[in-house]
Formats: sequence, C-alpha cells, structure tokens
Amino acid sequence: MEFLYTGIRVKNLEESKRFYTEILGMKVVREGKTENGIRVSMKSPKTGHALELNWYNSGSVYNKAYISGEELDHLAFSVKNLERFLSNVKKKGIKLLAGPFRGGGWANAFIKDPNGIWIELLES
Amino acid sequence: MEFLYTGIRVKNLEESKRFYTEILGMKVVREGKTENGIRVSMKSPKTGHALELNWYNSGSVYNKAYISGEELDHLAFSVKNLERFLSNVKKKGIKLLAGPFRGGGWANAFIKDPNGIWIELLES
Repeated sequence: MEFLYTGIRVKNLEESKRFYTEILGMKVVREGKTENGIRVSMKSPKTGHALELNWYNSGSVYNKAYISGEELDHLAFSVKNLERFLSNVKKKGIKLLAGPFRGGGWANAFIKDPNGIWIELLES
Repeated sequence: MEFLYTGIRVKNLEESKRFYTEILGMKVVREGKTENGIRVSMKSPKTGHALELNWYNSGSVYNKAYISGEELDHLAFSVKNLERFLSNVKKKGIKLLAGPFRGGGWANAFIKDPNGIWIELLES
C-alpha cells in the first residue's frame, strides 16, 4: 500500500488552480470531467508529491455546503527564502496569517489557500 | 516551492497511527512533542509521500471541537489486489463504505480512517 495523493475539495476551481500553480509552483498533470464535476491532478516538480483538486457541480450529491472542518490540519510546502516569498506573494494579494517564526535552523509562516485551508511554508 | 506533506488532525493518536501503519503500510519517520500536543511524521516506503498526524492536547488553542468539514475530500492509497486487501482489513474491523468499482483498467473502493476521513483505495 502506498500513499498516492491528497484530494481537497475546492469552491472555485480556477482560483484554486491559480493558487497552487502560480503561488506554490505545482504543475497540472491531468484535468478531466467526472460524473460529479471536475478533477485536476497536480504535482510538485521535485518531490513529486501530488494534490488533487475536486470541484463538484451543483447537481452532484457531493456538492454539500462547504463547512470548515478539522480533518485537514494543514498542507506544508517548502520555500527557499521565506521573507522573499512572503514579499512576492503579498503583491498577489496573499495575506500572511502567522509568523514568520524562526528557530534553530528552521523558519516557517502560515497563509491560507482560497478554500480556507492552512498552508505551512517551511524554509529549506 | 515544493509540496512536502499533508497534515491531518487526529482525535486519538494511537488509533490513527495503527490505522496508517497497520492498514495502509506507512512508516513512522519521526514523532515528537510540540507545545500544543504530539506530531507524528509518516511516509510510504516507495512513493515517499508523507502524512503528518497532529494531535492536540486539551489545553491547546488548536484543540477545538472536531467538526467534520469539506476541505479534505479524500486521501488516496494504492493497493495491489483490491478484493484481497478488503478481505484482510475486514478482519481488522475496517468497513467497506463504497465499491469496489471496476472500469476499464482501474478499480477502486472507499473506507474511512478513524477520524472519518475518506480513504480511496486504488488498485494498481
């Protein structure tokens, strides 16, 4: 058994695609319609770690009210230079929500994706 | 920027550790206390895809009521033989919740983790 990917549900597909590609550097691998909506598979170029965006159309049984829950604590992404990254994305309207925090050899900060999902940025 | 891991919040740390190691074959890479609780990092042996279990102690600001939300659609895992896998985990008390479905060259089924997170099993 092998962990393949994390599927998140997105409110606005284009907005989430832009966020994960333009802000977080992921690449779209595959995109296609399902009987319930649209599914977009993405990967990070080096780690190969995969994320799936699931958008459900209004007729779908999965298109329930988008309640903010506790299951998904956060998604973690590496960035080379935290301050530079934060300064760049600030110009694109991304708000810094916590940090940056610096410890012995590490630094992190938190933003949110367009669905309200916490994103941890880890300098490495 | 590279996607590193998915962090889920867990209700019962030992139960979730058992589920992801014994049922889904992940390996514990690191485990440690934080100021808010306990964090366990896990990886799948081949894909290297990583999951972090976040357990918060009762005094933590993060220990909010565990509401079932929409952000995390599902986590996907590969299995070699779906029917054999389902038969094995049934003996360990895991309920099959949807499927198995078979299409042209693919098969999947759904179970839930101990926190109520949907797990897609993909035969490959």
